[in-house]
Amino acid sequence: MSENSNTFKIHFLPNDTIVDINDGSTVLDAAHKANIYINSICGGDGICGKCKVILSSGTVDAPPTKLLSDDEAGKDYILACEASVTSDLQILIPKETRLEGKKILLDQNEQHFMTWKAILNKAEFKNDALVKKICLKLEPPTMDDNVADHERLYQAIMMKQGIELNVMQTGYSILKKLPVVLRQNDWTVTVTLGHRGRIIEIIDIQPGDTSNTNYGIAIDVGTTTVVASLLELETSKVVDSEAVYNTQMKYGEDYIQRIMYAIQNDALNEMQRSIVTDINTLISTLVKRNSINLDDITAIVCAGNTAMHHFLLGLDPERIRKEPYIPTANFIPPIRAIQLGIDINSRGLLYALPSVAAYVGADITSGAAAIRLDREEMPTLLIDIGTNGEVVLGNKEWMVCCSASAGPAFEGSGIKHGMRAAKGAIEIIHITKEFEVSCSTIGNVPPRGICGSGLLDCIAEMLRSGIIDRSGNFQKGIETDKLRKNGDEYEFVLVQKEDTGIDSEIVISQADISNLIRSKGAIYAAVALLIESMGLSISDVHCVYLAGGFGNYLNVRNAITIGMLPDMPASRIKFVGNTSLTGAKMALISEDAFETVQNIASQMTYFDLMGNQKYMEEFMSANFLPHTNLDQFPSVQEELSSLNKPLTGK
Amino acid sequence: MSENSNTFKIHFLPNDTIVDINDGSTVLDAAHKANIYINSICGGDGICGKCKVILSSGTVDAPPTKLLSDDEAGKDYILACEASVTSDLQILIPKETRLEGKKILLDQNEQHFMTWKAILNKAEFKNDALVKKICLKLEPPTMDDNVADHERLYQAIMMKQGIELNVMQTGYSILKKLPVVLRQNDWTVTVTLGHRGRIIEIIDIQPGDTSNTNYGIAIDVGTTTVVASLLELETSKVVDSEAVYNTQMKYGEDYIQRIMYAIQNDALNEMQRSIVTDINTLISTLVKRNSINLDDITAIVCAGNTAMHHFLLGLDPERIRKEPYIPTANFIPPIRAIQLGIDINSRGLLYALPSVAAYVGADITSGAAAIRLDREEMPTLLIDIGTNGEVVLGNKEWMVCCSASAGPAFEGSGIKHGMRAAKGAIEIIHITKEFEVSCSTIGNVPPRGICGSGLLDCIAEMLRSGIIDRSGNFQKGIETDKLRKNGDEYEFVLVQKEDTGIDSEIVISQADISNLIRSKGAIYAAVALLIESMGLSISDVHCVYLAGGFGNYLNVRNAITIGMLPDMPASRIKFVGNTSLTGAKMALISEDAFETVQNIASQMTYFDLMGNQKYMEEFMSANFLPHTNLDQFPSVQEELSSLNKPLTGK
Repeated sequence: MSENSNTFKIHFLPNDTIVDINDGSTVLDAAHKANIYINSICGGDGICGKCKVILSSGTVDAPPTKLLSDDEAGKDYILACEASVTSDLQILIPKETRLEGKKILLDQNEQHFMTWKAILNKAEFKNDALVKKICLKLEPPTMDDNVADHERLYQAIMMKQGIELNVMQTGYSILKKLPVVLRQNDWTVTVTLGHRGRIIEIIDIQPGDTSNTNYGIAIDVGTTTVVASLLELETSKVVDSEAVYNTQMKYGEDYIQRIMYAIQNDALNEMQRSIVTDINTLISTLVKRNSINLDDITAIVCAGNTAMHHFLLGLDPERIRKEPYIPTANFIPPIRAIQLGIDINSRGLLYALPSVAAYVGADITSGAAAIRLDREEMPTLLIDIGTNGEVVLGNKEWMVCCSASAGPAFEGSGIKHGMRAAKGAIEIIHITKEFEVSCSTIGNVPPRGICGSGLLDCIAEMLRSGIIDRSGNFQKGIETDKLRKNGDEYEFVLVQKEDTGIDSEIVISQADISNLIRSKGAIYAAVALLIESMGLSISDVHCVYLAGGFGNYLNVRNAITIGMLPDMPASRIKFVGNTSLTGAKMALISEDAFETVQNIASQMTYFDLMGNQKYMEEFMSANFLPHTNLDQFPSVQEELSSLNKPLTGK
Repeated sequence: MSENSNTFKIHFLPNDTIVDINDGSTVLDAAHKANIYINSICGGDGICGKCKVILSSGTVDAPPTKLLSDDEAGKDYILACEASVTSDLQILIPKETRLEGKKILLDQNEQHFMTWKAILNKAEFKNDALVKKICLKLEPPTMDDNVADHERLYQAIMMKQGIELNVMQTGYSILKKLPVVLRQNDWTVTVTLGHRGRIIEIIDIQPGDTSNTNYGIAIDVGTTTVVASLLELETSKVVDSEAVYNTQMKYGEDYIQRIMYAIQNDALNEMQRSIVTDINTLISTLVKRNSINLDDITAIVCAGNTAMHHFLLGLDPERIRKEPYIPTANFIPPIRAIQLGIDINSRGLLYALPSVAAYVGADITSGAAAIRLDREEMPTLLIDIGTNGEVVLGNKEWMVCCSASAGPAFEGSGIKHGMRAAKGAIEIIHITKEFEVSCSTIGNVPPRGICGSGLLDCIAEMLRSGIIDRSGNFQKGIETDKLRKNGDEYEFVLVQKEDTGIDSEIVISQADISNLIRSKGAIYAAVALLIESMGLSISDVHCVYLAGGFGNYLNVRNAITIGMLPDMPASRIKFVGNTSLTGAKMALISEDAFETVQNIASQMTYFDLMGNQKYMEEFMSANFLPHTNLDQFPSVQEELSSLNKPLTGK
């Protein structure tokens, strides 16, 4: 016991970190205090079983739980969130519970996505950065030309940029240093101009020509992952990107849990600091790695869901989760990054892209702009599958959207061996008729878990090979010992223990399958509802853009086979990756793109699905592989028939 | 001697204030340290002789000076700025040297000026305050109307005020408190909206209806006097006014001296604090006297000359006094008052009205708007006689302006018994043919000095009564002992010692007369130059507005008689008092007026008179009473002839 009788020392391994914690605290509390991020999908409610740790020494007080197998219990596994500390402890965090070991996958590293230049060309936004650096050579004043310094600068900006005088704004600090800076390099200066609505603000002024050192940061503020790209604003070049897990995960896996945590613990400020710290970490990494001066970063564009934007800005998120689900703001005015504690140029601006509603955020409006939904002639779908699963249907004339409450199953959450698209994640799975499983992982290392595209493959392949039936139930009669009973539940072994990068087999359980079917069903039901509400049918939909962190090798055919996407030629379905980040990058380097996101956000009509009876009916029908009504999936009907499998189930 | 051998104790009477000061400092330094403001026109250069004090005990080291009479020297008078402290001292500050005893005259207390309401009606500006409080009753959100809080507020503002959504701006702090404030009084709120160029900013939001407590402050930031009016913005009512001497006077009487002081002593910050403190003192007095909450003051409009605005904003004024005379800014963007340390609502805005050039400031553009020069059909003159003497000629189509460098003689500076229009100032003087002098003072108290209108009367009456000739020289032959020699110089006794409120006679000296003639000559020359430069003659000028702190009873006929104003029917000359303050008040309660000042400032063409040969010629010709060329003053020629006085002089 520690010196103070009310506190205990908790020694975490392999980190070798020791913290003091009060009697009665949980091991999870201690991990938070030690800044060790461990898997905790349910946010500490003792229901997900992700926070397994091994008690090497000491005693804890923990209730019995079904979330640990007998085998695990025998090896001194405990649930960190359930175990109250009653002595000094030594805790070993097993690989599968750790977050920090996984390098998150960044689109940009991959070859088979379109290049940034090609994406930009296709989007056809004017290259006109939100924040620009302009070099000006002013005429020195004379007795005949005695215009004041400030107005002389305005006139030069007007001459060069065609900006009207009365829309320009100058901050007090700029005004104060103006006369000295103007004269420092013989009337050659570089002004940094930023958009604030209709106003052009002089963000900075520097002596000489520094116009070639102007950088911005685009950030996808995800619930799970925060991804940042560093762009050179003059050339639109993506210099570098970096990702970190959102450290807010310690407050809850999904944002509803985090909102509840914020309210119950009065923790909004702390949670804001948490996400701000993540962003500062990303920026600091990017800046150091590319030898860039922080002062030369003049703008940030953020695209996150509505709750994440509230957390980032420290806006009270309470009403997002309570009927009638009202955000504080969908359209957030540009603010100085420093006001949030984000370290860039002290007058640099942060632009949070606009949301549509509590459950359709800036990640979606940004994504819709990235794929130029606003220019489509024909009805087009954008489906973004992340923690929630948002669907947009529209074209250049109208847009409707909804949030499907699909849950984060395809992000790996709630799935026994699910994980994000990170190194070691299985992203492709093939199963033969003889139930032989072959798979490939991100980074070609021994598998650690399964990411979205792998899970999707897994369901489709199990259906094709007859391991499961159309209701998702294991076909108990098949001849393989890979299908086995674990406690009360059946599971199918995908990878044997000796072939994995963790200390166990990788399996898919009956509960996992149900979870994934519910998730894909929720998405398909949302798609169907939007299509129907516009008086259209699936055949009217010209194209589907699928966005999200599935991985890189998403098998579109499999997405149709399991009934997540409507049955249409695979050529009309495009997997577009992280469109939230793409849209943020575009908005950063193009005022035109920024305006497009604003317009999309104002024009989108939001459908609330909660309590919508029609949606519930669609959802029930979609809780099948591919669907209760096979007429909606003629190609799947044909496919499954040709495999000569009985189309059993309801 | 004090304990510390390098410092001395200086005891000031009648204030009864003691300060410690280092060996070698002057008595003036000690007075500054004690925050005792004493007359010091030359800013401590030992040339004005205004800082006379009486050395009651102790010793000083002071050079001989002609600025003290033998009589004064015998009574232990010393010049505070010249006397180095060499022991502990007791210093008595005589009445005439004190500043704080004089209550400055405020226009509003006077009956014969137009009422504020009449002035406003005449100006015909729309009543539409720069910063407004608007009470809004919002519809609470429902599932069918789930617009976010921020956009709901914008929509309500748009509905009520017709303000387009994309010109509104919300500060971060407002956004943060928005959801709570909206719900605090059942969706009834009061928003404070301020203009920032084309943008409407939400300055504050309060629960319930507080729209009837919205106040603003209009300030004439004069070189000598700072005058503030408190206005109720909803009703345009002037609630109260107050004035203080500009404590920057301790750094120099005129602003050129102050700029030099700022540069030589790196004292810009200190001098900014000085003027900010004056303004805070004024606001604090107004607020307490009228039981108003500081938070309910949401806007300040300032109208001062270019140098004063630079000092107020802490902008480097160095280049104002150096060729080619370039201000840092003529058009200053609205800034938050708190950024300057001015205490009003923490998000309240300070609007500094625009200047035209280094020597034609916002006091002039404000004044031109106050008299609606922009609506005049015919060429009209605005002459503002303060420290400098600025002249504007124009109508609704064009405006030209210049600064006459007239000096502050008509403000009482550089005149032996000159003083500002304050209690005890002689403002009307009549002199009979028998040289009997009758005068009336402000406040009907024994006279303490002579203000502008009195000085103007004095010259005119001395000319009429034959005490001086047309070149301003005393007619030595007149039969009165009131004309006497004092040292090398002649002077005329206006008031005997026993009838004054100070410890001496009130006289006017030959030097005073020369000073006043130079001053009026500079003004007339500027008027003549502007008229000529536009290809006009005096008969084309329809009307003259005379502004400045002369007092209340300015005799327009006398202004013509001495040749300060052009010879025209007195009915076409209007004395309009402090138009700088009037314009600031108008701008505060009318966006229309604010815009008018901006337009006037952009449209005015500035004529620089320094080194202008034509101006020098005009000035030489005008250095006479009324002028070298009597043809320009036919009515004066007739008047003087009828008095049967010889029109002597050059």
